[in-house]
Amino acid sequence: MADNSDDGNDRNDEPKDIGVTVKKSEDFSEWYQQIILKSEMIEYGPVSGCMIIRPYAYSIWEKIQNFTNREIKSMGIQNAYFPMLIPESLFNKEKEHVKGFSPEVAWVTQGGNSELPERLAIRPTSETIMYDSYSKWIRSWRDLPLRLNQWCNIVRWEFKHPIPFLRTREFLWQEGHTAFATKQEAEKEVFEILDLYRRIFEDLYAVPMLTGIKSENEKFAGALYTTSVETLFPNGKAIQGATSHLLGQNFSKLFNISFLDAEGNKQYVWQNSWGITTRTIGIMIGVHGDDKGLLIPPRVAPIHIAIIPILFEDSMDKVLRKCFEIKEGLSKTRYHEDHLNAIVDDSDDRPGYKFNHWELKGVPLRIELGPKDLEKHQAVLVRRDTGEKTIVKISEINEISKELLDDIQKNLYERSLKILNDSISKTDNLDDFKKLIEEKKTVLVPFCNNPECEDNIKAMTGAKSLNSPLDQKNNEMKCFSCNALTKTLFYFGRSY
Amino acid sequence: MADNSDDGNDRNDEPKDIGVTVKKSEDFSEWYQQIILKSEMIEYGPVSGCMIIRPYAYSIWEKIQNFTNREIKSMGIQNAYFPMLIPESLFNKEKEHVKGFSPEVAWVTQGGNSELPERLAIRPTSETIMYDSYSKWIRSWRDLPLRLNQWCNIVRWEFKHPIPFLRTREFLWQEGHTAFATKQEAEKEVFEILDLYRRIFEDLYAVPMLTGIKSENEKFAGALYTTSVETLFPNGKAIQGATSHLLGQNFSKLFNISFLDAEGNKQYVWQNSWGITTRTIGIMIGVHGDDKGLLIPPRVAPIHIAIIPILFEDSMDKVLRKCFEIKEGLSKTRYHEDHLNAIVDDSDDRPGYKFNHWELKGVPLRIELGPKDLEKHQAVLVRRDTGEKTIVKISEINEISKELLDDIQKNLYERSLKILNDSISKTDNLDDFKKLIEEKKTVLVPFCNNPECEDNIKAMTGAKSLNSPLDQKNNEMKCFSCNALTKTLFYFGRSY
Repeated sequence: MADNSDDGNDRNDEPKDIGVTVKKSEDFSEWYQQIILKSEMIEYGPVSGCMIIRPYAYSIWEKIQNFTNREIKSMGIQNAYFPMLIPESLFNKEKEHVKGFSPEVAWVTQGGNSELPERLAIRPTSETIMYDSYSKWIRSWRDLPLRLNQWCNIVRWEFKHPIPFLRTREFLWQEGHTAFATKQEAEKEVFEILDLYRRIFEDLYAVPMLTGIKSENEKFAGALYTTSVETLFPNGKAIQGATSHLLGQNFSKLFNISFLDAEGNKQYVWQNSWGITTRTIGIMIGVHGDDKGLLIPPRVAPIHIAIIPILFEDSMDKVLRKCFEIKEGLSKTRYHEDHLNAIVDDSDDRPGYKFNHWELKGVPLRIELGPKDLEKHQAVLVRRDTGEKTIVKISEINEISKELLDDIQKNLYERSLKILNDSISKTDNLDDFKKLIEEKKTVLVPFCNNPECEDNIKAMTGAKSLNSPLDQKNNEMKCFSCNALTKTLFYFGRSY
Repeated sequence: MADNSDDGNDRNDEPKDIGVTVKKSEDFSEWYQQIILKSEMIEYGPVSGCMIIRPYAYSIWEKIQNFTNREIKSMGIQNAYFPMLIPESLFNKEKEHVKGFSPEVAWVTQGGNSELPERLAIRPTSETIMYDSYSKWIRSWRDLPLRLNQWCNIVRWEFKHPIPFLRTREFLWQEGHTAFATKQEAEKEVFEILDLYRRIFEDLYAVPMLTGIKSENEKFAGALYTTSVETLFPNGKAIQGATSHLLGQNFSKLFNISFLDAEGNKQYVWQNSWGITTRTIGIMIGVHGDDKGLLIPPRVAPIHIAIIPILFEDSMDKVLRKCFEIKEGLSKTRYHEDHLNAIVDDSDDRPGYKFNHWELKGVPLRIELGPKDLEKHQAVLVRRDTGEKTIVKISEINEISKELLDDIQKNLYERSLKILNDSISKTDNLDDFKKLIEEKKTVLVPFCNNPECEDNIKAMTGAKSLNSPLDQKNNEMKCFSCNALTKTLFYFGRSY
């Protein structure tokens, strides 16, 4: 039996200001704002929509960067860096592109004390500046494929209400921009990257995704088609996770990115672009967090285990020493591509305060150790996801911690998958669709993929298409809204 | 004997356009521009002073990032990300700071189609925006030290002629910003970081540095003092490598970053800031490159070894197969914190063209393998730094490659150190000083550290102080220029 049954009052005496004061189910938006601030993931900056990403959140982004870099480098993609400032004339070269971004561009007009001769756009994405160079670098089939990626900051001057991670004026991302000799090679990459993004969400963030192709209305303006991963927040709103675009030859014709093939014929390259952003962190927070605070899946958790000593004056030294010993042992234990990261909270606060603090921070596992535990060579392990307690021998703590963390990772994924699956309803008519959307469902419907039809649906219901699942039977069906013939099903929902 | 003696003409028949057309010693500036373009490190972008860092250069930056992250994290420093756009009012808060940067700021004045109510500065450095937050986060001695770092892009709208890596309007860096309870702790870190920067240059880039404290004239305006590492280009011009500043309480008083100490007294924190940039890559290029092109020290080389098959029709398959076998073996061989990276150049070009190509790219080691070598189970290893050839058994190629690479690293450092030491002269009077500066020497002089005196020296000679070496005898001396009493020696030179 652990010591923590002895002094429950003391341990649960939580100062009011550290906890979350609203329930996730009652006011998702307020809950989200509170936990990202109180867990020290975010601080608001002086410019609206530009957030400070604090170390606790940034270290998650570093894990995503490391994983992504390893994966894309093994595919043969290289990192580079292109300038952030794009002259207006170059920026305007891609008219469809500009239609998509022009209202959202932050413009530099002055350098030092002088007016600039031409406005410079802060990149809202880097197609124009990168493809300008690609046209210089690519001459022959030997120069292909050209597969570059950059990690950088992006500015889009949105006027909607900003939400940290989910919709901000400045954010961090990677943008991959690749050029191939054939459509076939390009398409292969589009889906490999889409699958990489699915794995980032499902395997690292434990967030299940709907994988598919965007509608004509929702695709990137410059693309032949856009693929995406999408998921659902517990408030019933869908959110796009990441996109991978087949650009086709739209940009290569515009920027004259051509090559001589092995037979000496001039051809335009086939291009892709794809990106994933710091939004992923917000999605993880919204999906897994609960009324106690964050809940970070072990694979991306900055801290895996919080060790809380239960201290009494006469045994303080012994207990503390053992806690640090346990931390040492854990830190030498391999966990996926890294080691376990444990901390000992030896501050002066009471145990109950510490429990709440590390629960708020979403640390997936807690170890409690008091003098009676020490006598019995045992400790108490407490799961953040279920609250379940396990008493384990100290000698087995490394192995059992690893097992519990893997189980937490699995449980977070499975319970989110159940919520996602439970939210999906199917219909083939507009009346049911309207009801289901009101009930905050994600609705799978046969849809004609006509932009005007989608505009109508949005005007009527506030819902838009998320994507069209990859594996479909392609039976002949009628669009649920306009009755036109179609062979494809789409997910619809209200979304961010 | 290697095959490469048999067909020398063929192998050295170099197309004119790939090589460097000027000698480093005759026109350093033109030589530098040519090798960074031809080796595919840089491409010019559409905005003057904003360069494209191509994968071959960016991968060097990634090595510096990995090394630096490992070192600073082990010191307890965490990464974070602060917004790039800083409101003018906040930016102006630090008057001395602004005096230093205002003429160089790029201003965002429009968002989408609207004028912004207040101009936003693109960060030329992040003191103001970071310390605004520090004042919110730091309340008690328990919140200290606060040690954050960020990797990001920086814009300084310089009007001098841009030089890729060395002076650009946009560049990449890390900026560390830390706060401590005591001056003693802060000073300890200043010199630990300075030593980290010295090690980045000396141990990774193989560039010897002069380590010291900047003069009053040359220090960062907001600092109590600035420490720096400086080195010398073969054209006799000095260049600053990186800086680590003791800010003291200048900023903490301005931004009200205070804490209650253990006794409950209000105190201001002691702060540091420090940064290293993509300029480091330009310094490496300028110091080590030669008339054949780049020369990249093995510790930072994107490719360690270029394997060139000497192909004849009847033995082509066998030779190629062995080349790829050698590459495999090398790639499994540990080299410092990573593995050896070798490539096989199996393109259709002639061997001589390939030799020149990989020499231009500065790959430190070349392996040549032809059919006669294969018969004798041997290969030819050629050092990029000395041109020296070694015939080795194929079975020993992994070990000997490692040894040669370590020797190349050492040799690059030692020959640069000799050049640096040979360039240093000592004097105590202005007449000699003038002559030595004309001879492009780095001159060690007793100097009063009076800003007016330094302004005079600069006006007379074009030279300024680099830094003051850390270990000095502190004898009583007279300033070489104004005869005021002083106890410190300074390095002076013409510089970038």
